[in-house]
Amino acid sequence: MAEIYRLDRIKEALQRMDPIRAIEEGFVAYSQGKVVVPPVGEMIFQKPPGDVHIKYGYILGDDYYVIKIASGFYENAKLGLPSNHGLMLLFKRQTGELSSILLDEGFLTDVRTAAAGAVAAKYLAPKNVRKIGILGAGVQGKIQLTFLKSVVACSDVMVWGINQKELDAYQEAMEPFGYAIQTTRNASEVASNCNLIVTATPSQKPLLLADDIQRGTHITAVGSDTPEKNELDPKILQRADIVVADSVQQCLSRGEIFQAIRAGVLKKERVRELGKVISQKKLQRISENQITVADLTGVAVQDIQISKAVYEALSS
Amino acid sequence: MAEIYRLDRIKEALQRMDPIRAIEEGFVAYSQGKVVVPPVGEMIFQKPPGDVHIKYGYILGDDYYVIKIASGFYENAKLGLPSNHGLMLLFKRQTGELSSILLDEGFLTDVRTAAAGAVAAKYLAPKNVRKIGILGAGVQGKIQLTFLKSVVACSDVMVWGINQKELDAYQEAMEPFGYAIQTTRNASEVASNCNLIVTATPSQKPLLLADDIQRGTHITAVGSDTPEKNELDPKILQRADIVVADSVQQCLSRGEIFQAIRAGVLKKERVRELGKVISQKKLQRISENQITVADLTGVAVQDIQISKAVYEALSS
Repeated sequence: MAEIYRLDRIKEALQRMDPIRAIEEGFVAYSQGKVVVPPVGEMIFQKPPGDVHIKYGYILGDDYYVIKIASGFYENAKLGLPSNHGLMLLFKRQTGELSSILLDEGFLTDVRTAAAGAVAAKYLAPKNVRKIGILGAGVQGKIQLTFLKSVVACSDVMVWGINQKELDAYQEAMEPFGYAIQTTRNASEVASNCNLIVTATPSQKPLLLADDIQRGTHITAVGSDTPEKNELDPKILQRADIVVADSVQQCLSRGEIFQAIRAGVLKKERVRELGKVISQKKLQRISENQITVADLTGVAVQDIQISKAVYEALSS
Repeated sequence: MAEIYRLDRIKEALQRMDPIRAIEEGFVAYSQGKVVVPPVGEMIFQKPPGDVHIKYGYILGDDYYVIKIASGFYENAKLGLPSNHGLMLLFKRQTGELSSILLDEGFLTDVRTAAAGAVAAKYLAPKNVRKIGILGAGVQGKIQLTFLKSVVACSDVMVWGINQKELDAYQEAMEPFGYAIQTTRNASEVASNCNLIVTATPSQKPLLLADDIQRGTHITAVGSDTPEKNELDPKILQRADIVVADSVQQCLSRGEIFQAIRAGVLKKERVRELGKVISQKKLQRISENQITVADLTGVAVQDIQISKAVYEALSS
């Protein structure tokens, strides 16, 4: 009989496990060609506007295959409902039996995205992080910061957002976690103060400019997951010593790397894949002076890994 | 909060509703071009062999979209497990919220297939059915017969199967429903005795031959859902007065119609779509002397309709 878990149980299980490790192992398997991910299923609705994505796949040799269903209906706020909904399903690879339904309401997608940010910081951030910069004061801006805790020993944070109310809410929400939070509505102030920056916005025009970025900075961009979105000036990627993609193939059609290649300032050959960076020390940051960029567009192996890891924690 | 229903509750709800009507309305909507069905998602496994299909879609103007996940792992019998597993998910079209999970273990796929058989018989079978013939003594061979009850007033049945043990089990299972069941291992005996025949086998070579079929017979073929499977001699479709497909488009690439077109004995233009047959009297059987064939390969609108109808019965 399939076990069904709701969000409260899933959140509880996350306290007892290490999602960062699960995601890290997933990226390594992905870059080794061990992950089977068929084309994403999609339904696009017009009135009211919404989209549904079905992502699924498995790691060769694994005990499970995973199907994730996620939707975004952007007028839900008018009804007082969250825009994003979702669930993840685990099935036994050998028999097709349904093992578990994780009714995570989209939360595990936030978690796996934040865990990927932590993995990028672990291998690419400078040793001495003076201040963490977060662009975007929303859900992902918050969870990215909490996941950095276990990989970066720095509690000084500057957060950028588009309105002061949102920034005040961010400060109030995150200070109890032990952070000293400064707020700003000027993104270049983040660039000049912080040497580990995470961008987590749906922006369609660059928020960070190349001339603002200091030597030695690492930037993780997680906001851009479509061909239209763009958080970083393409010249940042041109100047960067190391440019990393979660999936090289996917980053050729969306995200910051796609933008920089399209602008003619980045060659595909310069892009390193995160799974290879994790497993090969020579591909990681080698000096405190380098500029590094990780472009995380979100890959199905993250969904596979987070759902397996949560299910194992829940059922053990 | 999503409502989750297990198989026992689903079976109970089916007693309180009319699945045939839901399926019939679905075919009409499909033939009117009102059903949106994106390409099927698929995973194929080698060792042990198995396949997983993700079918999804919605009817324009409807309150729900539906995602069905179904698998077949053909060595499960060795483990004492059923080969087929599955579940259906209903989401609110306006918001993406998960309304219900139907943990039907593949049962609703059997039901919607049998309900389609009943719809085909309703519009195409001769008025006077002397004896019902069933090819295939498995699950689908049984459920097809039970669904014919409400559309055909005949309780004399001849069933064909590949071994006597299976046939005896069929007889024992179905006689309590009020049927007089004869068994045979000679398919041409079914053809010469029955004027309403349902084929429900995974055969890859024709079981019924054109010369065996009597005038006035209706045949519904539900077993062939891949390009390899084939239950009917293509000449049966050549000689038939009316050839009906659940989906003309789908029957061009699989099923009995595909086989007959490939054999050069049937033209696409002769094929009528079931949804149109239902809504246009002139496309239905017009004499007791006609041979009619319905080729049912299974379409997503059946999954959409059965899950909606079951959910409505469960939640009312």
